[in-house]
Amino acid sequence: MNKTVCVRQIERTPLDLIEKLKAFGVATIHEAQGRCGLLAAYMRPIYAGALAAGNAVTVSLPPGDNFMIHVAVEVCKAGDILVVTPTSPCTNGYFGDLLATSLKSRGVRGLVIEAGCRDISSLPEMEFPVWSRAVSAQGTVKESLGSVNVPVVCADALIRPGDVIVADDDGVVVVKREDAAAVVEASAARVKKESASRERLAKGELGLDIYAMREKLAALGLKYI
Amino acid sequence: MNKTVCVRQIERTPLDLIEKLKAFGVATIHEAQGRCGLLAAYMRPIYAGALAAGNAVTVSLPPGDNFMIHVAVEVCKAGDILVVTPTSPCTNGYFGDLLATSLKSRGVRGLVIEAGCRDISSLPEMEFPVWSRAVSAQGTVKESLGSVNVPVVCADALIRPGDVIVADDDGVVVVKREDAAAVVEASAARVKKESASRERLAKGELGLDIYAMREKLAALGLKYI
Amino acid sequence: MNKTVCVRQIERTPLDLIEKLKAFGVATIHEAQGRCGLLAAYMRPIYAGALAAGNAVTVSLPPGDNFMIHVAVEVCKAGDILVVTPTSPCTNGYFGDLLATSLKSRGVRGLVIEAGCRDISSLPEMEFPVWSRAVSAQGTVKESLGSVNVPVVCADALIRPGDVIVADDDGVVVVKREDAAAVVEASAARVKKESASRERLAKGELGLDIYAMREKLAALGLKYI
Amino acid sequence: MNKTVCVRQIERTPLDLIEKLKAFGVATIHEAQGRCGLLAAYMRPIYAGALAAGNAVTVSLPPGDNFMIHVAVEVCKAGDILVVTPTSPCTNGYFGDLLATSLKSRGVRGLVIEAGCRDISSLPEMEFPVWSRAVSAQGTVKESLGSVNVPVVCADALIRPGDVIVADDDGVVVVKREDAAAVVEASAARVKKESASRERLAKGELGLDIYAMREKLAALGLKYI
Amino acid sequence: MNKTVCVRQIERTPLDLIEKLKAFGVATIHEAQGRCGLLAAYMRPIYAGALAAGNAVTVSLPPGDNFMIHVAVEVCKAGDILVVTPTSPCTNGYFGDLLATSLKSRGVRGLVIEAGCRDISSLPEMEFPVWSRAVSAQGTVKESLGSVNVPVVCADALIRPGDVIVADDDGVVVVKREDAAAVVEASAARVKKESASRERLAKGELGLDIYAMREKLAALGLKYI
Amino acid sequence: MNKTVCVRQIERTPLDLIEKLKAFGVATIHEAQGRCGLLAAYMRPIYAGALAAGNAVTVSLPPGDNFMIHVAVEVCKAGDILVVTPTSPCTNGYFGDLLATSLKSRGVRGLVIEAGCRDISSLPEMEFPVWSRAVSAQGTVKESLGSVNVPVVCADALIRPGDVIVADDDGVVVVKREDAAAVVEASAARVKKESASRERLAKGELGLDIYAMREKLAALGLKYI
Repeated sequence: MNKTVCVRQIERTPLDLIEKLKAFGVATIHEAQGRCGLLAAYMRPIYAGALAAGNAVTVSLPPGDNFMIHVAVEVCKAGDILVVTPTSPCTNGYFGDLLATSLKSRGVRGLVIEAGCRDISSLPEMEFPVWSRAVSAQGTVKESLGSVNVPVVCADALIRPGDVIVADDDGVVVVKREDAAAVVEASAARVKKESASRERLAKGELGLDIYAMREKLAALGLKYI
Repeated sequence: MNKTVCVRQIERTPLDLIEKLKAFGVATIHEAQGRCGLLAAYMRPIYAGALAAGNAVTVSLPPGDNFMIHVAVEVCKAGDILVVTPTSPCTNGYFGDLLATSLKSRGVRGLVIEAGCRDISSLPEMEFPVWSRAVSAQGTVKESLGSVNVPVVCADALIRPGDVIVADDDGVVVVKREDAAAVVEASAARVKKESASRERLAKGELGLDIYAMREKLAALGLKYI
Repeated sequence: MNKTVCVRQIERTPLDLIEKLKAFGVATIHEAQGRCGLLAAYMRPIYAGALAAGNAVTVSLPPGDNFMIHVAVEVCKAGDILVVTPTSPCTNGYFGDLLATSLKSRGVRGLVIEAGCRDISSLPEMEFPVWSRAVSAQGTVKESLGSVNVPVVCADALIRPGDVIVADDDGVVVVKREDAAAVVEASAARVKKESASRERLAKGELGLDIYAMREKLAALGLKYI
Repeated sequence: MNKTVCVRQIERTPLDLIEKLKAFGVATIHEAQGRCGLLAAYMRPIYAGALAAGNAVTVSLPPGDNFMIHVAVEVCKAGDILVVTPTSPCTNGYFGDLLATSLKSRGVRGLVIEAGCRDISSLPEMEFPVWSRAVSAQGTVKESLGSVNVPVVCADALIRPGDVIVADDDGVVVVKREDAAAVVEASAARVKKESASRERLAKGELGLDIYAMREKLAALGLKYI
Repeated sequence: MNKTVCVRQIERTPLDLIEKLKAFGVATIHEAQGRCGLLAAYMRPIYAGALAAGNAVTVSLPPGDNFMIHVAVEVCKAGDILVVTPTSPCTNGYFGDLLATSLKSRGVRGLVIEAGCRDISSLPEMEFPVWSRAVSAQGTVKESLGSVNVPVVCADALIRPGDVIVADDDGVVVVKREDAAAVVEASAARVKKESASRERLAKGELGLDIYAMREKLAALGLKYI
Repeated sequence: MNKTVCVRQIERTPLDLIEKLKAFGVATIHEAQGRCGLLAAYMRPIYAGALAAGNAVTVSLPPGDNFMIHVAVEVCKAGDILVVTPTSPCTNGYFGDLLATSLKSRGVRGLVIEAGCRDISSLPEMEFPVWSRAVSAQGTVKESLGSVNVPVVCADALIRPGDVIVADDDGVVVVKREDAAAVVEASAARVKKESASRERLAKGELGLDIYAMREKLAALGLKYI
């Protein structure tokens, strides 16, 4: 049964692990952890080149009502990323430069919101990155409760407080807190392998040969004409 | 880290509880459990009047590949509902009358799939209800693995194996296994209260009076002209 | 500047004119009044064969909040159709069988809502037709004000209180109160003309000849091969 | 270079072949011809149970202008299905009961239109089936040319005049004229094979065994828990 | 009843008021005037940093036909913004660099169009900003009439000739001509209040305290854990 | 009947013709060739200012499976543009910097894909332009066949191997190989005519006069008020 709560203390992922994940980027992490944790492709950065990684502080709230974001600010710490999801689809601008100012003063690194964002001229100047579903100047009320720091489904992904969020131009991915160290290792391995491939591909070698695909193609019966 | 598995044994919700939930319908259950667990509104029944409730057997699989549905059939039992979700958006027809025949022979009560379904003329005749995102004759391959009976995000809702699925013309709702008994009670209470209201409303009494809303309206400052 | 108000008294269109409009249907009326007043094509009836016409009582309200529908019920009269539009896109189920019971007891003939509706199994039994953008069991709160009986934009059309709403399987059209009589006449003329064409077309005569299109085709330079 | 033309004479597929294809239905045909030719899933019948097959007469026309449909009527013959596609996305109601009356008088069996349709209450009574992208009472003008009986792309599929269209509750598929006989054979083979499977599945045998999938699952490394 | 007209003379809002509104931006104006007048969020600038404010000259026209834009140019004056809306959804590119050249020569400041725009490489160089629903090279015909300087519904908002349009990266808002002076005042008050809040938030004070929200949270029953 | 093949040798359009087409841009070419060949407006460049023209090498492949792109690389030559289309709608990221490295080493000029793309931070640095339907880090498998260098329908347009693709900020257009020379001429004529108009428009002359539209307006019955 659903209850509205605000959980003050959550277990976070160590920031040094988060820095390492950030360096790999969304596409590599997603592959390295077995192709899971990616948020839906409609979650886009409000400016090109945006990049952020941090601990998820999660917010579930009603359509058109941002009361719980104000509640969440108080429990955020340096290195966090706020993750906001409404209980039904909504494109209202829940978030603008005032909330960004407040979060920035607490060391929060960015926002992921399955709804709208506004003041998108000011936010790049403030270097406060946002990934959102929409841009909209339509504001919200502050009337109804939701929850802070409970597991949420945001843009098709399950996100728990303290999980790692990495976001860049390719989108947003969540890494489970308990997997963070293993995903760093798997990502490093993947990057190493890809670098080797990249060099060979740059010289004109074919993926068909590098990845030894020709036999499988023949077995599947591809006809060359 | 994601691994492909098929979990054979899951804990299920007792079928008598499920029958009670079925009688309340999706809208009542959703309200009674605190407005959570509803699947996205794009999940629609393929025929009007469809109604089903059962234990979730969950399937996560790749876009355009229904291999894992065949794997899932084996672990289904009487009273189950199959819940299928692809790892990225896909409208292919993963499911048709052959799979329905197979599931029906095992006592499965329906399908909830965040993708496409086909043979929608035959399925109503077979009385095998389906809630899907799309209707499409486009088939699938059987090449890649996924998982059966792991927690999945389906149409914005987290569904775990053995949770209760209730689906009708209004959509689909999931009730956590551990909440099922409490939600039956809360739903019964809600129905009772609504019946009383319905009688008064039918006689022409106003909701403004029955629910005592006039004071709040005045406090909020509504002007009548 | 926007203010929240409830206008109790509105000028309505005489019901005998409304009955005449209802008989013509949406497509004819839309053409007859010069191709205006049609609501967006995503407004669909929740059951086939639904048909209604009445005086618009309008409601503007926030996303996810149906408080103002309860306010509107009180000012509805027999022969009205409730027209509801949120201030930003929302698919929540603002409306179900309790509100339908209440409206029906006052003689209201239907609902047009640019949002979601629920209890769609009960509403056809009650013969209370609804045209909506979505079906959703997701409920709403009752916290914030909006307005009743002010001009609203609903599904791309401007609707003023007391304008005529006609809705059928083809969609929803609004006729300005001051135009109602003229539109009845124009619709009748159109029906008469179409009946004559229909007879000729049924006998195999071509539209190219009946509507004398061949000359224009030649002038535009169509080549037959 | 594009030119506006109306091709009067096209080569058609024999009607007895078309009748055979109709009996198999869309899903079977699509599989039997190697999973090609399916129109996009947003093409839906305006009433459940609609079923049609015939020779394609194709129309390419501008958004909001149905002049060329009137031109096309004249070149239609008994057993044809009209296929209409605008040059840019449009939901206007290009087609209603008058055009249906005209087509029916010539023996045309149905309409496939990547746009809107209106008068959807009358069309089922007339038993004139339509598959469309939208329902809309919004009419069209008759001002600009397009082409009749040229190859068109309709809802993601290439359709040439005289190709076979089969349409049912699952959607719409096109079969190339030169493939029609071969697709009849391949469909018959598929139906036979599926009937055998259906019987075995109905008795409770598993697809995993009937289709011999267990070895592949093991090779791919699926873990049962 | 709809008639096609071109209104030459309209009452405009004084340009000094418009300059003041422009300085506040869309988000502030929308809030200041009571959260109304915002166009739908799908209206986006074709380049980042676009900014414009002016008197609305309105155009209603058919899908795929830009004849009336040419008519509208003649009635535009310096300081105007052209507002164009088709009578049914259309993404065609109604507008490109030739029309922009013509409008610019008359002192028109920008375009708001609920359809497509093309030549989007040239327009930023010309510093002619456009807010549109789509980018498309698909052109239009010049065959059918519509109206200029009548009230239109554009992207969910009612816009009358001579109303003020303000558009920036956050979207587009309309201010009624008669409200312009009052909205300037209300916006200034809002900016002043927000500046004070911004300073306090930047220092780390919480919105919960600045806006005195804690009592309401307690009254609503939020539980901290 | 559909068969999976890879066609090694295709007839290409001479590169000097392609360079000439590139200079005209998408909007001009589309108009000059009679308003055909434009891909759907949802095909957008991943970075502003992207521009490419080349010979189409086409790929048809399953949703979520990029095996055939690897096959296609081998048959690409300098001056080609890869055109990729899945057999059902899919937003997966089929393509990233490794494949771009490989294609670039062979002189391929860009990618047009009716699906997703990833690594969109690296691709602009590499100056490898991509037009896609989506951005997504979600990868693909390499399990199933499709075809290379067969005619495909991509984003509503028919594209044959060796046809010319031109893509810029306005979108993507295809020119038939046999039409390339004629389209160069028609485009040049159009540009010349438009230059003349542009000069006159820049001086303040009206399109109504330059294009002699006033008579037609009067004939159609436009009323000036």
